[in-house]
Amino acid sequence: MRDLNEIRQEINQIDEKLIELFKQRMDCAKEVGNYKKLNDIPVLNQNRENEILDAVAEKGGEYGASARLLYSNIMELSRALQHNIVGSGQELKKVIANAEADLPMSGIKVAYQGIKGANGYEATLRLFPKGEPISYKTFEEVFEAVANDEVSYGVLPVENSTAGSVSAVYDLILKHRFYIVGAFDLKIDYCLAGLKQSELGDIEKVWTHPQSISQCENYIGKKDFEATPMSNTAVAARAVAKEKRLNVAAICSYKAAEEYGLKVLDNHIQDNDSNTTRFIVISKKLYIPENADKISLCFSLPHISGSLYSVLCRFNSLGFNLTKIESRPIEGSQFEYLFYLDFTGNVHSENATNLICQLSAEMPNFSFLGNYTEQ
Amino acid sequence: MRDLNEIRQEINQIDEKLIELFKQRMDCAKEVGNYKKLNDIPVLNQNRENEILDAVAEKGGEYGASARLLYSNIMELSRALQHNIVGSGQELKKVIANAEADLPMSGIKVAYQGIKGANGYEATLRLFPKGEPISYKTFEEVFEAVANDEVSYGVLPVENSTAGSVSAVYDLILKHRFYIVGAFDLKIDYCLAGLKQSELGDIEKVWTHPQSISQCENYIGKKDFEATPMSNTAVAARAVAKEKRLNVAAICSYKAAEEYGLKVLDNHIQDNDSNTTRFIVISKKLYIPENADKISLCFSLPHISGSLYSVLCRFNSLGFNLTKIESRPIEGSQFEYLFYLDFTGNVHSENATNLICQLSAEMPNFSFLGNYTEQ
Repeated sequence: MRDLNEIRQEINQIDEKLIELFKQRMDCAKEVGNYKKLNDIPVLNQNRENEILDAVAEKGGEYGASARLLYSNIMELSRALQHNIVGSGQELKKVIANAEADLPMSGIKVAYQGIKGANGYEATLRLFPKGEPISYKTFEEVFEAVANDEVSYGVLPVENSTAGSVSAVYDLILKHRFYIVGAFDLKIDYCLAGLKQSELGDIEKVWTHPQSISQCENYIGKKDFEATPMSNTAVAARAVAKEKRLNVAAICSYKAAEEYGLKVLDNHIQDNDSNTTRFIVISKKLYIPENADKISLCFSLPHISGSLYSVLCRFNSLGFNLTKIESRPIEGSQFEYLFYLDFTGNVHSENATNLICQLSAEMPNFSFLGNYTEQ
Repeated sequence: MRDLNEIRQEINQIDEKLIELFKQRMDCAKEVGNYKKLNDIPVLNQNRENEILDAVAEKGGEYGASARLLYSNIMELSRALQHNIVGSGQELKKVIANAEADLPMSGIKVAYQGIKGANGYEATLRLFPKGEPISYKTFEEVFEAVANDEVSYGVLPVENSTAGSVSAVYDLILKHRFYIVGAFDLKIDYCLAGLKQSELGDIEKVWTHPQSISQCENYIGKKDFEATPMSNTAVAARAVAKEKRLNVAAICSYKAAEEYGLKVLDNHIQDNDSNTTRFIVISKKLYIPENADKISLCFSLPHISGSLYSVLCRFNSLGFNLTKIESRPIEGSQFEYLFYLDFTGNVHSENATNLICQLSAEMPNFSFLGNYTEQ
């Protein structure tokens, strides 16, 4: 058996030659790109790619599956090169170029889901301190309000949400062809809030949302409170104020306690101090702030492992850092998936715009959801 | 400029040589694997890999980033080969080999979150028709009940959930080191349920969960009902039965209507007929049914694009189909991510076991969550 160093020397020699061949192949891909541009031929030729992959898999022998994988990678890189030469995704490029930078922030109405004092209300005030928050019962009503120009923006939770899931919100964004123009991480901070006449020692029962019961479980256990679930924490605060029982308190936000005239009996009672809920701002019109640092995309793929792998290849080759990825089967289709991706970037950089324009030219159901600032 | 066919001929010639070199390189990787096995040297040598990647990026010239990407791929494939030779992940292999196949199904207690008639209750009855469902208030209490052997299993929602998110459930599974031993997709099917004396024409108000208001929005709008949110649909059904008002109905499951003696006034009133909620069965003990078809994993990665890309390379090279992928930042760490992956497979196939054993040897915080049947 050879020594490790001897084997590695051979590997290094192989690599020298392999890289030269790869460079020659990329030069050819460039030439193909120029030819396609000149003759107005689409970049993707699925038949040609499948032929190559099948041939490679056969020639690879015992490493056939690995060789096929390697080549799916090589072809992804060639195609990215060709898209840049051809200048794919011009329509999206125009949409991005025409976006205004500054969101109107004052004298505007902003829709949120829930009642005054709910987390959505608080997030709205933090995002639009000079705006007027308008309450709606459901996510759909928030979207309708934006669609009908009753309000300029809508603020909706997309993580740790209690009244729906991220995908419900994203589905509605796609359905309405809205954009994401901002985001805010609201720290979850609960207090125990009772009547003005109540003292902490009087409390025997707490009213709150089931999720808040979970989030304050240690505290509730230690105090031996009896917890009753309600539809949300602001509703619980309102009910405590209305029912006027000395031994009942709400577990709610400080905003909700203030809103319904309750006294804060205990502070920061959540078990875990690092919980946040993410809210996004939806808008009919696309705004891209100068300092925008997050890009959200959505697209569908025929299956996850192979095709997602190929897409991530593009992000990776340009050094973009994904901060979120989520998949789910497309309704009524067992074998097609919808993906939500967030990555850090600004469309004013050429790489970022090229990447999303390339993807827009190739991915089924591609949507550019926005480029915004996270607060 | 050359014709497309001429360029493609050159590409084909390059590919012939490139594949030969790749095969030689994989032969070397095999030799390295044997050497490492004999001398008990770990498969992953991050320094050596980084050296190669840096050298390749430099040699790649204008294609440096692409060459680096190609090589991260090649090294992933070499490492997978070496893991198989070395036989990595022996501990996990033992855990899997020792798992029993048959879950005890009768004479057992099963914990669920919510009250009788809630979706969790219905899912429990469907999964364990001969079991005894036991109600708990929160997810945590369900986990505690399993931990304390009060029950044999817990049934919990992991999608479209109202009382928490998938990550809360997965976090608790990891915390308790439990396994997933089953799953069930419950179709969301709502009825309008009122008092025995009520008729459809009497109803003016509906009580239900906010998510159900969203899911039946068209119906509620058409009937011009006034909707009041409650903490969940079973609680709404119970409240309608208790309050005895002729003009009030609950929007709830058929199970909940039956449970609280309500009359079904209207059928299948959800706007979308393909909504389901996924429930999983958690267990202290690992069971792997003979016909198990889904494998769930969890692990962390330093960043998404590059490292997830490398992991997907493994799945792809073995032809495994991922059915779910979800990322989220690890608490308190901006730059590390936790991943949940589901893929179709059975650990009794050598490829599947090899893959998860390889990953268990390399991924930080790797957890094999289970291999189970989806109903």
